[in-house]
Amino acid sequence: MAHTASISQLQTPPWALVNGELVPYTDVKIHIGAEALTRALSVFEGVKGYWDSAGEVFSIRTPRRHYDRLCRSASLFHIPVRFSYEEFLAGLSKLASELLVPDKDLWFRPTMYVTHGHWGEATEADLVVTAFSQRKLDPDPMRLGVTSWRRASDLVLPTRVKSSANYVGARMARIEVRRLGYDDAIMLNDAGRVAEATGACVLIAQRGRIVTPPTSESCLDSITVDILESVAKDLGLTFERRPIERTELLAADECGLAGTISELTLVAELDGVEYEQSGLLAQVRQRYLELMRGDLVLPDVDLVPLVDASREALAG
Amino acid sequence: MAHTASISQLQTPPWALVNGELVPYTDVKIHIGAEALTRALSVFEGVKGYWDSAGEVFSIRTPRRHYDRLCRSASLFHIPVRFSYEEFLAGLSKLASELLVPDKDLWFRPTMYVTHGHWGEATEADLVVTAFSQRKLDPDPMRLGVTSWRRASDLVLPTRVKSSANYVGARMARIEVRRLGYDDAIMLNDAGRVAEATGACVLIAQRGRIVTPPTSESCLDSITVDILESVAKDLGLTFERRPIERTELLAADECGLAGTISELTLVAELDGVEYEQSGLLAQVRQRYLELMRGDLVLPDVDLVPLVDASREALAG
Amino acid sequence: MAHTASISQLQTPPWALVNGELVPYTDVKIHIGAEALTRALSVFEGVKGYWDSAGEVFSIRTPRRHYDRLCRSASLFHIPVRFSYEEFLAGLSKLASELLVPDKDLWFRPTMYVTHGHWGEATEADLVVTAFSQRKLDPDPMRLGVTSWRRASDLVLPTRVKSSANYVGARMARIEVRRLGYDDAIMLNDAGRVAEATGACVLIAQRGRIVTPPTSESCLDSITVDILESVAKDLGLTFERRPIERTELLAADECGLAGTISELTLVAELDGVEYEQSGLLAQVRQRYLELMRGDLVLPDVDLVPLVDASREALAG
Amino acid sequence: MAHTASISQLQTPPWALVNGELVPYTDVKIHIGAEALTRALSVFEGVKGYWDSAGEVFSIRTPRRHYDRLCRSASLFHIPVRFSYEEFLAGLSKLASELLVPDKDLWFRPTMYVTHGHWGEATEADLVVTAFSQRKLDPDPMRLGVTSWRRASDLVLPTRVKSSANYVGARMARIEVRRLGYDDAIMLNDAGRVAEATGACVLIAQRGRIVTPPTSESCLDSITVDILESVAKDLGLTFERRPIERTELLAADECGLAGTISELTLVAELDGVEYEQSGLLAQVRQRYLELMRGDLVLPDVDLVPLVDASREALAG
Amino acid sequence: MAHTASISQLQTPPWALVNGELVPYTDVKIHIGAEALTRALSVFEGVKGYWDSAGEVFSIRTPRRHYDRLCRSASLFHIPVRFSYEEFLAGLSKLASELLVPDKDLWFRPTMYVTHGHWGEATEADLVVTAFSQRKLDPDPMRLGVTSWRRASDLVLPTRVKSSANYVGARMARIEVRRLGYDDAIMLNDAGRVAEATGACVLIAQRGRIVTPPTSESCLDSITVDILESVAKDLGLTFERRPIERTELLAADECGLAGTISELTLVAELDGVEYEQSGLLAQVRQRYLELMRGDLVLPDVDLVPLVDASREALAG
Amino acid sequence: MAHTASISQLQTPPWALVNGELVPYTDVKIHIGAEALTRALSVFEGVKGYWDSAGEVFSIRTPRRHYDRLCRSASLFHIPVRFSYEEFLAGLSKLASELLVPDKDLWFRPTMYVTHGHWGEATEADLVVTAFSQRKLDPDPMRLGVTSWRRASDLVLPTRVKSSANYVGARMARIEVRRLGYDDAIMLNDAGRVAEATGACVLIAQRGRIVTPPTSESCLDSITVDILESVAKDLGLTFERRPIERTELLAADECGLAGTISELTLVAELDGVEYEQSGLLAQVRQRYLELMRGDLVLPDVDLVPLVDASREALAG
Repeated sequence: MAHTASISQLQTPPWALVNGELVPYTDVKIHIGAEALTRALSVFEGVKGYWDSAGEVFSIRTPRRHYDRLCRSASLFHIPVRFSYEEFLAGLSKLASELLVPDKDLWFRPTMYVTHGHWGEATEADLVVTAFSQRKLDPDPMRLGVTSWRRASDLVLPTRVKSSANYVGARMARIEVRRLGYDDAIMLNDAGRVAEATGACVLIAQRGRIVTPPTSESCLDSITVDILESVAKDLGLTFERRPIERTELLAADECGLAGTISELTLVAELDGVEYEQSGLLAQVRQRYLELMRGDLVLPDVDLVPLVDASREALAG
Repeated sequence: MAHTASISQLQTPPWALVNGELVPYTDVKIHIGAEALTRALSVFEGVKGYWDSAGEVFSIRTPRRHYDRLCRSASLFHIPVRFSYEEFLAGLSKLASELLVPDKDLWFRPTMYVTHGHWGEATEADLVVTAFSQRKLDPDPMRLGVTSWRRASDLVLPTRVKSSANYVGARMARIEVRRLGYDDAIMLNDAGRVAEATGACVLIAQRGRIVTPPTSESCLDSITVDILESVAKDLGLTFERRPIERTELLAADECGLAGTISELTLVAELDGVEYEQSGLLAQVRQRYLELMRGDLVLPDVDLVPLVDASREALAG
Repeated sequence: MAHTASISQLQTPPWALVNGELVPYTDVKIHIGAEALTRALSVFEGVKGYWDSAGEVFSIRTPRRHYDRLCRSASLFHIPVRFSYEEFLAGLSKLASELLVPDKDLWFRPTMYVTHGHWGEATEADLVVTAFSQRKLDPDPMRLGVTSWRRASDLVLPTRVKSSANYVGARMARIEVRRLGYDDAIMLNDAGRVAEATGACVLIAQRGRIVTPPTSESCLDSITVDILESVAKDLGLTFERRPIERTELLAADECGLAGTISELTLVAELDGVEYEQSGLLAQVRQRYLELMRGDLVLPDVDLVPLVDASREALAG
Repeated sequence: MAHTASISQLQTPPWALVNGELVPYTDVKIHIGAEALTRALSVFEGVKGYWDSAGEVFSIRTPRRHYDRLCRSASLFHIPVRFSYEEFLAGLSKLASELLVPDKDLWFRPTMYVTHGHWGEATEADLVVTAFSQRKLDPDPMRLGVTSWRRASDLVLPTRVKSSANYVGARMARIEVRRLGYDDAIMLNDAGRVAEATGACVLIAQRGRIVTPPTSESCLDSITVDILESVAKDLGLTFERRPIERTELLAADECGLAGTISELTLVAELDGVEYEQSGLLAQVRQRYLELMRGDLVLPDVDLVPLVDASREALAG
Repeated sequence: MAHTASISQLQTPPWALVNGELVPYTDVKIHIGAEALTRALSVFEGVKGYWDSAGEVFSIRTPRRHYDRLCRSASLFHIPVRFSYEEFLAGLSKLASELLVPDKDLWFRPTMYVTHGHWGEATEADLVVTAFSQRKLDPDPMRLGVTSWRRASDLVLPTRVKSSANYVGARMARIEVRRLGYDDAIMLNDAGRVAEATGACVLIAQRGRIVTPPTSESCLDSITVDILESVAKDLGLTFERRPIERTELLAADECGLAGTISELTLVAELDGVEYEQSGLLAQVRQRYLELMRGDLVLPDVDLVPLVDASREALAG
Repeated sequence: MAHTASISQLQTPPWALVNGELVPYTDVKIHIGAEALTRALSVFEGVKGYWDSAGEVFSIRTPRRHYDRLCRSASLFHIPVRFSYEEFLAGLSKLASELLVPDKDLWFRPTMYVTHGHWGEATEADLVVTAFSQRKLDPDPMRLGVTSWRRASDLVLPTRVKSSANYVGARMARIEVRRLGYDDAIMLNDAGRVAEATGACVLIAQRGRIVTPPTSESCLDSITVDILESVAKDLGLTFERRPIERTELLAADECGLAGTISELTLVAELDGVEYEQSGLLAQVRQRYLELMRGDLVLPDVDLVPLVDASREALAG
């Protein structure tokens, strides 16, 4: 599987969910006067649902944490949240009932678009959920380059908030490195250290340890990274969170990208230098997928089955 | 006139212009899958048209420079421009013919929304122009506060590009200072010096000179400031562009905000301290308005009459 | 108990201690030619003494560590120390014998004022100790705002040194946020991350952990925070020292301020957003007070009884 | 004249002026509870009075600008000013009548000490003026070293405000370089460029031009530098204000320190490297002194004669 | 003429000059124990000699300024200079007598290699001069990319000193962008603004003005840029020195690289975006070459004829 | 043993090893056209061999880690490595056979000099190994000063790469502090915190813990520090890696410098302030030497005996 296309640009699903109601996907539009467009005011989550290894039950990974993080993003941007966790989860289930098919997982993008209000006064947002199928194939290892553009710092455009505005810089970065034939860009933070890729966090393996930058290095407060930490520790590995310099990244034994959609994708090369794949990150990745498929259970990681959606999909 | 509302939030004009065609304003929407929403990819201009003092001819201020700047914003964001300057100007005229009324000026917002393509590939953008009436009243002097949020630096989210994403931070800043009862926020740049207000540039008067930060201080490359420089020099005043510290701003004789929509708006107080109005900035403001009304002519500043639109408005 | 007044501004005790001698408080003055005034050369400590829960013995918390820190502050400012730990402790006891009353604790401020010498040559300092009664009431939770002023970095004005000069910026910060009705300000460091409040350290509780910035983030090397770490670990809680970003502070579960005088004061809101009080910090606070009252003993934390002063106070 | 001693540490004048009243110098003290001591809250000016070359009239250099700058310092620190310019000037005159002697100039230090109020509430300050005689001898060229300590930036402790707190770092810097046998230290700002010396501004001569950093480089907004600019331009020299790097300072043709008390003092060496004295700065210095003695008149620079004080001094 | 090769890597001249003596080029080696190798201690100049347009006289451009700058580089690195300007110039002449041929100019590289001493004690350096022929062809416009590596700041490795150590980063930068097919890299400084290319300074033309960063932006104190300033002003153009942001560079009308060897080389594209060549920089370049060929005379720019070397070359 | 001379400046060994062949030391020279000189392109290691305490077997400390680090340095500088670990080790053995004598240890400096190629194209490097005897005496405690020059950050000149270019700044720093009579300089990083000494890492002991900065603070990724961590933990001590501020260094209980050649050298004073030697670092040092002499064995630390070289030396 190549990395040159976003999952969402290849599919046009029939339905989306707007404030809990199914609406034809192509009809979901935002008026140009809304702050979602005039001031780039939208926050979102990427949520992943997995079929278990038997192909019988479809479950959402850690939906509560996604709901909490979406609420936190909204709160930091002064956007009121008008739906409960139960409504959020029911929405995912409702949309999955329409879009889920056997043999493919689903990636959901719940987004809050500010539709009314200005400058924090009388702000209202719609919750729109879209979902896209994802095949269970392994991605090819990625080829990365370090971009000359920078990740915003916390006081400028907080990485802690998953917002569309963060992708303006990410897109410049990716365009820059794609001219080189790379798949994605490593972005440095304002101190010149490793922040993250344009849409995923960075992990390295070095002398048997796994290291990733803490959130104070301008990377997302990643739920997937937290789960990978649990997986790694379950495997008996040391897992550190500390600043990583660019040359440490270049000189690492291995490198991987982590995110809900990337899961743990191996990196084949950076800036033209190939990593020797020691197998450590591949092992963590394998265990992560077992965890997602229900073949491994860890105390901190919950999968919430969507029983009705599973049934309908299998019946479908 | 108070400052607590944006001009665009108070009006719902009947028409907008989409790629040269008139479309009912309320119908102009962007699909949620467009990069304009998923990656905050839109660039815009604020363009102002003025009635002359006789109320007979309506002209656009420096439209060529706005067109050039819009093209530059688009280019820096890798968005192709598919319309010529002549088409751009014709579009303003066409919309003005519908919306212009006697006694009110018009503020146009030409915006390019990325509607197709991803990550710089196959990118296409719609040009949408909206316009809003503006009364000829003098604004009240503004009350400002310094925000603790920061303006993005050039490598993060270039201020040189007028884009919606810059308003995410601007909105956080304005919300912060509005809790104090202030009208707007002064944003500092990543070196801690004065960048700009949330939607306008900053000028100070100090010992008979006018000073404003250069664009390398993370403020917009403002056409209005260039015109004010011409006006000031025509009045025999020294006009400097150099970094301004926060305490220099606090200790200045006078302060003003400059922009297409703000023109030159005086500042009454900053951080609770009132400026004594020496009259220098008021004088510059007065001359600026005379220039806009056609009662003063300066070699560098062109007003392009929209003769048809003027006629139709007066025929109204 | 409100936070709008400093403890020292509400009381005028009868005595202070100058180089070991009791002197009427109102007579203790510094000549304008002394470096304490011309170059802001004074260093101090805040030391707290507590009655045990039976109200019988009055003890000083960790006096040796305060003495050592005062010596370190003096050394970093090239101020010779001419008194031993024993003399320091005897001084606290002597003053307590005069000022201690039943039912009220005492907060001491030992200060070294540079009275002779210039630019590090022939420097001499007086040790003046003042003390103020503190009632045993719980403080109200505080309301905080982030200031736009910044904490000095180590090469500019080291936070490691408790000196009056650090309060110039702290006062600007507090004045700024008090206009908003806040009680105190959060100050960011030169990297834009959380440093401390104007006179206390910051702790957050997040997902069951307690986190506080390390001293390299421009916050005081706080004795109280060290004790709170011991208390937290005694309660089985994880206690981390790592950089905290502003939005992490905003999005935390709970926030508290720690210092000798603040003990552990809960924070009700920051920047207008209320924290939900999960009770974790309240529990730590409770245990801290038990420790101070002698109802809990921890190996690293010593209380030194002032027996004579206790007797005199109870006899008094 | 050597540089190892401050002017104020060598003299004990009989009188000082407190809020307009003469008080014996040794009696002027500040209570330890005042914010002048607890929070280093004092702002001051250095003002110089000169005998004319005939030794008949004693005049104050630019007293209005000193008054304005003192008011600005006080305002930035939220300290109310309760005296007019006329009262300020009368105070200088009154003190000069007591302390002035023939053949020696006078350097005044008007200082506002915060004596009442806390954290900006109910703040009151005393105006204390001291004065010290200064002989008319030429100072020896100075030997400087670059310190590893840094000047505070504007958001931390503004250099624009002349306050005692700025001298904490200055003193650390001077102690550091005096161990080398240097007279004074060059302080760099937070960007690592030249800020100023510990109590004076820096000028260089390079290829026939005079260059000095602008105030945004963390140096004082110096009145003396403004006057030197007038002098230099009167001599037909180019005078630039732009950032100066440390190696540019090291490689300059000449270097000088400027301030009310330093006037324009030549620098003999920096970091062990001697400057060749081309004579350019010496020429500017000479003209500056002629201006101060009334032998040169420039339109922007006013000297205000204290006629009564002159008479009394001469009458002796 | 392409840009993929350095002038010095294509030629092996028969002779070099070592401390004034001719030595076969291939014999000029440095011992591995010398600080020139163990601590990268060498400083150099690039000096250019031109035939006049008649092809009769060969002159060195501004040799005195090169000598002075070499002495300054040496001084900042604590390397004693043991040769006079006259010896320096005589050396160029001696080497030119051997290497000069009609129809080709010569580029000299005088280098001081530290051969004895350690850590600044007993330091001695050899002066080695090499020279390479340069044809009079116009270079192709260059294609540039912005590198993610950074120029050192003044306190780390001063750009003011022309030293081999500056090329470690320059080489990493050039390797990075050459993977893209670019000819050279734009390096940003530690503030993220434009510093210089890997071996030349950057100029832009924007709205009829020529702009280049000042040396405080981490670019070389370029003699060629000073000459280009004289040329530009002679043409009636405005020439500004001020910080340039990366997006200003991208959005400029034109861009050129300036240096002794680059002269003024036009830039065809940056980061994949082509500049429209307005002809302004080409005009300046043309005048610069006329100046070098003796067809234009400017007061500040001197060419020193090497009469003997010219004769021998023509006789050759 | 004093610190004023480098080990390599005092000895002239008879042989060096060039690409595996013995060559007379004085003949090993690099041509001036090589990138090793024109662009400071060389990377090196410092490797130490120790006699065991019986004086019978001579072993190399952790040669594999040195080989790996040398390869990493070369790779980050785009220099191909053409020798295997076995060849590297055999080379050390071959040279030791010539230079080793009883009673003295050997310090090897394997250096890769770029001799061919330009700007990363066709790059070739020679591997030259030199070795110098080192007596087994204890060094005197060192006296250090903080320099005003700065360590390069990772994007400028990576400290992770051991290269000659890093010594340009180190030499300026050491020259600066040696004027004070200090032995060596502490260099701060671009954030103003402790990086390292000019050729060794910094450790402090504070309240029973040993602390050293992580590599992201611009210090070498030191093998010796890793071994000292093992030694410290074997002694039951806490060993932390976290940023250290300058005043924390000044206020520490003890300070030491660590490196292959420094081993663990105690620091007597910093900036004129003496450390009280608590004995903690001396104890670690003692154990480290026991480990090097074979009297202590730790699982992570390997010594590779050079049996032939030992025999020849003893037979010698």
